[in-house]
Parts: sequence; C-alpha cells; structure tokens
Amino acid sequence: MKKILFATTALVMTAGAAAAEVSLAGDGRMGVIYDGDEWGFTSRARVQFNLSGETDGGLTFGGSFRVNDEGGANFGGRLASEGARGTVFIAGPFGRLAMGAPAGASEAALGNLHGVGLTGLGDYHDIDYLTGDGVGASAWNPTVLYSYTFGDFSFFASATDAHTAGGRVNNPALDSGREDYGVAVAWASGDFKVAAGYESSQTALGGGVSLERVEQFVIGGDATFGDFTLRAAYVNGERNTGVAAAAADYEELGLSGAATFDLITVTAFAREVRQDFATVGTLKNRFYGIGASYDLGGGAAMVGGIGHRDMDFGAPANREGKETYGDFGVTFRF
Amino acid sequence: MKKILFATTALVMTAGAAAAEVSLAGDGRMGVIYDGDEWGFTSRARVQFNLSGETDGGLTFGGSFRVNDEGGANFGGRLASEGARGTVFIAGPFGRLAMGAPAGASEAALGNLHGVGLTGLGDYHDIDYLTGDGVGASAWNPTVLYSYTFGDFSFFASATDAHTAGGRVNNPALDSGREDYGVAVAWASGDFKVAAGYESSQTALGGGVSLERVEQFVIGGDATFGDFTLRAAYVNGERNTGVAAAAADYEELGLSGAATFDLITVTAFAREVRQDFATVGTLKNRFYGIGASYDLGGGAAMVGGIGHRDMDFGAPANREGKETYGDFGVTFRF
Amino acid sequence: MKKILFATTALVMTAGAAAAEVSLAGDGRMGVIYDGDEWGFTSRARVQFNLSGETDGGLTFGGSFRVNDEGGANFGGRLASEGARGTVFIAGPFGRLAMGAPAGASEAALGNLHGVGLTGLGDYHDIDYLTGDGVGASAWNPTVLYSYTFGDFSFFASATDAHTAGGRVNNPALDSGREDYGVAVAWASGDFKVAAGYESSQTALGGGVSLERVEQFVIGGDATFGDFTLRAAYVNGERNTGVAAAAADYEELGLSGAATFDLITVTAFAREVRQDFATVGTLKNRFYGIGASYDLGGGAAMVGGIGHRDMDFGAPANREGKETYGDFGVTFRF
Repeated sequence: MKKILFATTALVMTAGAAAAEVSLAGDGRMGVIYDGDEWGFTSRARVQFNLSGETDGGLTFGGSFRVNDEGGANFGGRLASEGARGTVFIAGPFGRLAMGAPAGASEAALGNLHGVGLTGLGDYHDIDYLTGDGVGASAWNPTVLYSYTFGDFSFFASATDAHTAGGRVNNPALDSGREDYGVAVAWASGDFKVAAGYESSQTALGGGVSLERVEQFVIGGDATFGDFTLRAAYVNGERNTGVAAAAADYEELGLSGAATFDLITVTAFAREVRQDFATVGTLKNRFYGIGASYDLGGGAAMVGGIGHRDMDFGAPANREGKETYGDFGVTFRF
Repeated sequence: MKKILFATTALVMTAGAAAAEVSLAGDGRMGVIYDGDEWGFTSRARVQFNLSGETDGGLTFGGSFRVNDEGGANFGGRLASEGARGTVFIAGPFGRLAMGAPAGASEAALGNLHGVGLTGLGDYHDIDYLTGDGVGASAWNPTVLYSYTFGDFSFFASATDAHTAGGRVNNPALDSGREDYGVAVAWASGDFKVAAGYESSQTALGGGVSLERVEQFVIGGDATFGDFTLRAAYVNGERNTGVAAAAADYEELGLSGAATFDLITVTAFAREVRQDFATVGTLKNRFYGIGASYDLGGGAAMVGGIGHRDMDFGAPANREGKETYGDFGVTFRF
Repeated sequence: MKKILFATTALVMTAGAAAAEVSLAGDGRMGVIYDGDEWGFTSRARVQFNLSGETDGGLTFGGSFRVNDEGGANFGGRLASEGARGTVFIAGPFGRLAMGAPAGASEAALGNLHGVGLTGLGDYHDIDYLTGDGVGASAWNPTVLYSYTFGDFSFFASATDAHTAGGRVNNPALDSGREDYGVAVAWASGDFKVAAGYESSQTALGGGVSLERVEQFVIGGDATFGDFTLRAAYVNGERNTGVAAAAADYEELGLSGAATFDLITVTAFAREVRQDFATVGTLKNRFYGIGASYDLGGGAAMVGGIGHRDMDFGAPANREGKETYGDFGVTFRF
C-alpha cells in the first residue's frame, strides 16, 4: 500500500490502515406463521457480504449486499425481482456518500417504527417513505445518499434519477421516467432525537400526456428512558396525477416503543394511513402489532409477535381487509 | 456473550462455546459427457455457505445453502427455478429440528442408492421419495424435518404445508394446495442399518373438483463388509386421482454397492420402477449404472461412469426410451 | 491429505501443499455517467469466489465465479441472463485445461484493447472475438480452453460444442446447434508480444435448411517502452449464411495505449469495424475513448473517461449513431 499525503483531506495516512477486505455475516429464522386464515411453516437463511477499505489518505470506503441481492448489487440499484439492497460508499471529512440502494434522506434521518414478530408480519411498521424505499417505479435506478454530521446535527440529501441500469451508454433506452429527491435533518442529543424531511417524486406517465407529482413532509423523533424507547412519526403528502382515481391528499401517523427487561425485549406499534381520494373520499388503513424476543445467547433468540390490520384499501389479494395474524420461532445471527 | 442457565434443557452453558460464524466450502468438476447420442463438454463451479452457532444454553443452530440457491434459501423453501436447498436448524437434547428444504423423513432415514459418474448421469440412482424430494408441486413451501436418536434407533418426522412463501401475511394468495407428511424409523448397529418409512401427499386439483392423494411405504437398509457396502430399497405406493391417466399403483426396487480399493472406489446400482396405470396397464422403467473414482489427493479425483436406461414412460423429450450414456472427468472439493 | 507419487507427472508431492480453499475478492464503483443525452448515477458492488487446490501429485486446480454469475457457474457455462463467467481448471506439466466460460483461444492469446472510464463506457474497446466471447448463440454451453507455454511461445486451443447444459443425459433436447473452435499462438519476449489466431463458428439455422459458417483471423501485439504500452489488433473475417442480409466480409482494426505517471494512468483507444454486406454494401463503425485513473491507495482510485462512437449499423435503440459520452467516479478493490 502506497503511503501518500492526500491533499484534499489534509490527513496524513495511517500507517496501520486495515487492508481492504470482504467479510461475511449471516442470519436465519425458523418457526410458524398464522396468516389470518391458516398456520404454516416459515424459514429462511441468508448471507451478507461486507466490503471495507481505507485509502492512503484516510478515507474509508466499502459496500454491502446480500447474496440473494447479488443481481441488483451488480446492476447498480434495486431489481424488481429481488428488492435488492446493494450499496457502496465513500466517507471522509466531507461526509459520507452512498450509492446503489441506500435509504432516502428522510428514512436515513428518522427510520421506521419498531417491528414485531419473527418475520416482520408484513412489515406494516415501516413508514411509507416516498423515495429510496422498497421497490417502486424508480426502484431500478441507483439512489445516491449524502450524509453529514456536525455535533448534534445531521444533514441528509438523496436523489434517484430516471436512468435505469445506471444510464449505461450502450443501453440508454431503459429510462424509467421517474425522478426522486429528498432532504432531511436530524438533531440528536443524549436520549432524544428529532428529525424532519421533505421528499419529492415525479414520473412521466404513458404517452407523455401527463405527469405524476408526489411530495410529502415527514417529522418524528425518539426518546429513551432507561430501558424504554418511544418513537413517533408523522407524514403529510399530496399526490397530483392525471389518473383521477389515484390523486389524493394523505396523512400517516405512527407510534412505537421497545422495552428491555434483562433477556426479554418487548416491542409494539400502531400506525394509521389516511388518504383523501379525489374520487372515493377518505379511506383509512390501520395497523397494530406487539411482539417479544428472548435472547438465547450466541446469536440466537426466541421471537414471536401478533399483528392486526384494518384496511379500507390495498388489502392483499383474496383477503378480508380486517385480519389478525401472528408468528413464533427462533432467529439466528452468524 | 451472556452466560445463562437455560431452564428447558437444564444444561450449563459452555464457557468456550464457538462464536457464530459463516464458513465457505466449494466444489467443481470438468469433463466430457456422452448423452446417448453425442459427446459434449460439461463443467461447473459452486460454493456453499455453512452457518453455525451455539446458544449460551448449549443448543447448536445453523444452516446452509449454496450460492446458486440463495433465492430459495431467502424465500424459505425451494424455488422451481433453482431446485433450491437452503436449510436452517436448531438441535439439542430434544432432537434436531430443520426447516427450509431438508430431506423428508423417509429420505433422511434411508437415503438414496450409490450414484455413479462425474455428473450423476441423470441421478437415476435417486429413490423417488414422495415428500421433501426435489422440485414438485409442494417444492415452494418450507419443509420441516424433526429427527431424534436414542441409542441405535432414530426417529424422523417431516411435513410440508400448503403455504407458499412461508404463508407471509401480506402474500397469502399463493398457497400451493398441496400438503405432505412422512414418518420413518432407522436402526443402525455396527455395520448394519435398516430403515422404514411412510409418506403421504395430497393436492387439491383445479376447480376444487377433485383431490389427488398419494401414499407410499419405503423399506431398505445398508450392510458393510470391510471396504464393501451394499444398499437396498423398496417402495410400494398408490396414486389416487381424478385424472384417470395418472392413477396408478406402483413399486420401486433398488440395489447398489460401493467398494474401495486403496485410492479407487467403484460404485454400481440397478433400479426398477413399475407402475400399474388404471388406463394403459403396467409400464416399467429400468436404470443401471457403474462408475469409478480415483483419489488424486488434496480434494481432487478422476471420476467416470456408464449408465443405461430402459424406459416405458417418462423418457426425456426427443429421446428413445432405451439409451446408454456415460461421462468422465475430474472433480474438485475446496 | 494422502501423500502419493503421481505417476503421470512424476512429481513427488509437496509436503507443504496448500489446503484446498475458497477465498473472496470484491470490487465496487460509484459515480456519474453521461450517456450521450443525459447525466445519471451509476454504481455497483460485486464479490468473486476464488477456488484453489493442489493434488498430492502437484497438479494445481481451481475455479472462480462472481456471486452474480452463480447460476451460470453451476450450470456449466454462460447464462444469457447473467453473462456468466464461471470457470474451473486443472494445470500441470501437460499445460492448463480450463472449462466453463474461459476466453476463446484468440482472446486468451491477444486480449482486448485498453479500456477507459469508470464503467467501461459500453466496452467498445473489446475486440469482437468470434468464439468464447460474451453472450451469443453458443453462450449456454461450456467452452474448453487448453493453454501450453514453452519458453517464449504459448499455444492456445478452444472449443464450444452444441450441447446446452453440458449435454446432461436427462435433458438432451436443449442443443444450441452451434459449434465453435479456435487456435492461437503467442510469442512474448521482454517488452514485446505478438499473437495470431484463427476462429471458426458454425450454426445450424432453423429448419435445418441452411448453415451459418463464420471464420476469422486475428493478429496483434503489445510493445512496452518504460511506463508506456502500445497495443494493436487486426481481425479479418467472413460470414457465410443463408440469411442474405447478414452475409458479409468484415475487418476490424484497433489501437490502444496506456501510460503511467506516478499515481496517474492514462489510457486511450481507437477501433474501427468495417462490414461489406452482400446486400447494402460497406458499413463502418468507429469507436474512440480516452480516460484516466488516479490511485488513492488501499484499493481505491478516481477514474473517468470520455468516449465517442460513430456507427453506421447496430447503434443502441432510440439513439443516433454518432454520440459522445463519458463518466467519472471512484472504483474500489477489496
């Protein structure tokens, strides 16, 4: 490894800098799940690659992706078939720049509610971030996330362009027509954190006749009292679109908490999404969950949870909108 | 790592318990294959992840999957496109519980005949187990296998439910409509093993008009005389179905052996499957194979085999039912 | 590990032979790309498995594949969906035999021009080898490459048969109908290398009515003057086919160079492909590129490039044939 003075950062290189490496981490779970109608088995095993290195000038760089997201990680973004989560980054005194499939600015600043259960039970504790979240129209493109922390404040900015496959020069025909961006700030001090963000997404609809423009504000925070943590999040947004049935003002409110008693951790959440559709009026979805885990040591835990949904819109196919479900089993970390 | 007394198992945790880890193993092969008509090249390279850990109470847990089965391993079962084989397990004084894509009870108790050749030559030495074997209608769902050994006896029970994708609460519409279960016992002492099992599979056919119910008994065993091992297996089953052309009573008989002479191992098998179809009467498939491997040390071996099939039904597309084939090359273990 | 005298190679085994192992290497990149029309983000993260071992007789063996090529590596060749590059090999005094997706003989002897940019900018610096290169009609089959070096001379021979999936005996219906082979020689001494090769590909077209036969000669070389390297390649070929619009004589000429100044490396190339189509006459494609990288140490580099294409035929969908593009960012090695 060459030893140089890297002018931009004015840091003398560290003689003992760690060599660049690839390390492995794994997780697994096995148990039973009640989907609201019947019981079934559920299990999985996964491995993640963690890449890390350091330049002679003291910048750190790296990346990570799960084995089952390897196609998206190679492709430079999310793949619809994978929900892929490959990310690369470089960090130094200028902040941290991540690309691939990092969270959007608001999600990076605030995060999601506390989850419950062995399997996440539908992940209804996730806040509906507009950008850089899950698999949507812009999911095929790389997202870039810039973060900078100074004292108790952190600043986040993210963007996703319309160029599928990283705008490769020999495959420019695949643009998604959707562009996203977001900015967010967080203030954290001791046991308290507050965060706020703004997100915007616009998509050229078919035929170029019309444009869908969605924007939302997010605000929320954390408070920790000893072994007890509370979290709250509020979203207010507006979907303007030429497709009348989809146009809506919407709000989302979520509350969650976690409490640890020796080897046992209990989590719970409640979340409501309300949409004022231009056509059918106001519809509401409500989600609740409570769960617990018991630490067996060595990376294993017994985990279970119960959830309930009461959905006016968007319920899973072949299902009632109102349903209670649960799961139980063991989780592993390797 | 926390040190606790785990009440259920009443074991004091081992102070020196190995940390949970992910390790790698690989294999490869290269050579030529004669498919009964023409010669061709054949090769492959694979890597497997092995996950292992131990709770503070002394339970062991882990899992394994091949890189190319990563989608199925994450999904919690087999994927049709992968023949996926991801499995997780936890074991202790109560026995061993595995989930994902373990073998069914009968296969776990008895196994398959000795294979031949570089590539397996169609894997015709595999016994046709009804449950937890290969990629079938229930292949998308997690199988659970419980094993318990006391002295010379082992007991196995397995089941596969109808819930595709582990019955995820936000995707309940994907049930396969097929439910499997099996039980088996094995007795092993010194150089002898006998095993017997029962398997049942039932599937709701299209429109809910009709139900397919298949069940079979398996019995077999192993005997080792010095460097020579013999194996035998017999299957007797019945397929009841509203699809008249598929209804049948069937039998399967297999014999195989392996003999090791210093660095050389020779294997051979013969297997016959006989089906009494309700419509077309009795049809027979017969398979034979013989092969040898020469240990080169360091994980490499020269391997070759010859096989013959004589099939009244189910022959590969564009092929005569009666054909002789073979392969030769080198195999690697890493 | 058994210690034996391996007669064929007459080598006494090395007592300290390395145990067979699987190791990991990774790479990543992040930056921006201008595709000739718009700017976009681009990023990726990848990991490669490297397999290596040694027999008791001193033969080395191994293989390698990227995580995202795991399906093709398992399958024994390239997969259209992956551009897969899994390869296994065994080497000893007899030479080196590789199978799976190695380069064809001509590419192994001569290589490609110097590439430019963060992303390769369309990889237009790649010479159009006829066999064992990229994803074509024969891409699904294993390629075999034999190499032998004696003094300054190297000899290469490669072949790809028509048997998809390695001619598996239970899946013989998938033959591609295309057979390739190639031979090449290289002479390298000090700072100079010259190489020449011949390649042939023939494909049975639909209905068996007609056969496409393509053959080409390649000649080229390298010269290094201190920190400066020059490379040249010339291809002359003929495509005979029953599809009149595709029949053509063709030529390809490429020149490239790389110069290293302390931490900075500059590369550039120019390449022209000329086809004399039987139907539409002579068409030309020309490609140019120049790029630079700055070594940050520790496996990281800043890399950028600019390219230009001027294409009479085969331009990407929805694009002008004449376009200039570029990219810039950081690359990582782990």
